Amino acid sequence: MQTLGVALGERSYPIHIGTGLLDRTDLVLPCLAQKKVAVVTNTTVAPLFMERLAGALARGGVEVVRIVVADGEEHKDWRTLNTIFDALIEQRCGRDCTLVALGGGVIGDLAGFAAATYQRGVQYIQVPTTLLAQVDSSVGGKTAINHPLGKNMIGAFHQPTLVLADLDTLKTLPEREFGWLEANLDPLLARDPDALGQAVMRSVAIKAEVVGKDERERGLRQLLNFGHTFGHAIETGLGYGAWLHGEAVAAGMAMAADLSRELGFLSEADASRIGSLLKRAGLPIAASGIDSKRMRQLMSVDKKAREGRIHFVLLERLGAATLRSDVPSAAIERTLSRLAA
Amino acid sequence: MQTLGVALGERSYPIHIGTGLLDRTDLVLPCLAQKKVAVVTNTTVAPLFMERLAGALARGGVEVVRIVVADGEEHKDWRTLNTIFDALIEQRCGRDCTLVALGGGVIGDLAGFAAATYQRGVQYIQVPTTLLAQVDSSVGGKTAINHPLGKNMIGAFHQPTLVLADLDTLKTLPEREFGWLEANLDPLLARDPDALGQAVMRSVAIKAEVVGKDERERGLRQLLNFGHTFGHAIETGLGYGAWLHGEAVAAGMAMAADLSRELGFLSEADASRIGSLLKRAGLPIAASGIDSKRMRQLMSVDKKAREGRIHFVLLERLGAATLRSDVPSAAIERTLSRLAA
Repeated sequence: MQTLGVALGERSYPIHIGTGLLDRTDLVLPCLAQKKVAVVTNTTVAPLFMERLAGALARGGVEVVRIVVADGEEHKDWRTLNTIFDALIEQRCGRDCTLVALGGGVIGDLAGFAAATYQRGVQYIQVPTTLLAQVDSSVGGKTAINHPLGKNMIGAFHQPTLVLADLDTLKTLPEREFGWLEANLDPLLARDPDALGQAVMRSVAIKAEVVGKDERERGLRQLLNFGHTFGHAIETGLGYGAWLHGEAVAAGMAMAADLSRELGFLSEADASRIGSLLKRAGLPIAASGIDSKRMRQLMSVDKKAREGRIHFVLLERLGAATLRSDVPSAAIERTLSRLAA
Repeated sequence: MQTLGVALGERSYPIHIGTGLLDRTDLVLPCLAQKKVAVVTNTTVAPLFMERLAGALARGGVEVVRIVVADGEEHKDWRTLNTIFDALIEQRCGRDCTLVALGGGVIGDLAGFAAATYQRGVQYIQVPTTLLAQVDSSVGGKTAINHPLGKNMIGAFHQPTLVLADLDTLKTLPEREFGWLEANLDPLLARDPDALGQAVMRSVAIKAEVVGKDERERGLRQLLNFGHTFGHAIETGLGYGAWLHGEAVAAGMAMAADLSRELGFLSEADASRIGSLLKRAGLPIAASGIDSKRMRQLMSVDKKAREGRIHFVLLERLGAATLRSDVPSAAIERTLSRLAA
């Protein structure tokens, strides 16, 4: 097991990365204000890991409330959130209880937002079970639900007290979740624990550093949204759950790279390199079923829009991102006409 | 105009108390990150003050979105909150917009919680138009909506950037809102601006001091909840909106005083003094339509319950409150059998 920290003053917390962590109640117990925990997961993850985690906690003397919700981005909404609140209240969970988010990014967002707002805020622990959740969404305290008109439109910044990234949980993932790493990372595709551990460690270290400098996304942290302006519009436009978040962001990255090329920031060669890498990884680099007019409409209500102008994270060159709000309409149009239809 | 401050580090903010403040855009403009504001009010307050406030802002060059929701505690729920989000998104309100809560405690809670969670948090300004909102709920950053099983069960701590307590707005209040001051405060009942100003100033100063010491209600601030354990149960049990919040808390204070007497803290004479004062003010000191069994059930899910034990703010003597979680069941039962049926 290796441990990284997110440095946020009194809201700092450790991220443990390794194997067999679902059983490590010794890591969890010191974080609990009260020995009462509500584990929130979905119908896919519950049969795989719920009893292992809940059983270990129960043996440690913790009262465990089990909350299982439907699986999928299309359920990241008020309705599902309210079923979580119903269960918490019915099971007499008070201010000192701790929520545990056991699952991928959707569960992390949902359970995290429930924790942010239940009784004006209770503690929560992230136990991410997908690669993207381990390397990205479980770190940094962003929580949210979707609104029919905009992805992640309602939410809160609420930091967890602990993140347990158990690499064992990645063994059960379907191939679809792994596409983006396929390019040249054979050991990762073979779920080699050392390779996975290094990939998760490196990603978490980068993210933890950025979050430590800009928790509330006032500047630097916005650069982590590369691909998200286009990607969120795709997710909302096609209907939440039609594409995985990672797929929509992949197409969004291809679009952002193309737009960077349009504006003369990125060379033709580097823009192609990004597109090819995504394609080789089996990920989409364009969206169909959503035209450019609808894309623009959805992007203009995105959280990253300021004063009505769409903001994009673009690349000045590979490895150098920049936030831009002054992109000419015609350039956006050319990228969309090429990559969305 | 007089100004008090709430000292909360980088979340500190001023509270202006005086007359004619609805027109004082000079106080508002410096707080805006963007000249775009969404004023949230209800159908009762809108015809009285919306155009005065919105018109003044518009003349100051601010784009104003008007959001009018139904009036009453029974509308402080997900449904109404979502109508606010719908309007914000449709009107292209971004992260830099500011919400303005124009109304009483219900509007302050609703618009404040919308601000806490819209796009993971935008700024808001409190413009309280009832006496209770001016002296209490607009200060301190508590925001919430109700859950069918518990009052204020879903919410956030989110401090406003400014509070404008315009004493002129109290002139339009129906008599019911004033009952609690009726006892011996003739000038207040005559809506004398000086007397009102002093009452609001004194109350706000006390609350600001407590909030400055304990923003998140980990200790001291809990004492401000005198009457609220019983009061919230009454509101939830009778149905939100049946009683005004102040009425339920009045009966709750009478019950808490009686329980303090039961436990030998408060003398018979002082407990009667509290009951008499509330009665003379035209406020209820008992609840009917809700029996003691239901009251206990509702109190056990209250936010103030910890580890299943009901917490009460009791009086050791007049002026000396104390938080207790060790109240014997039989004492609670005697108070409820006397004052709830």
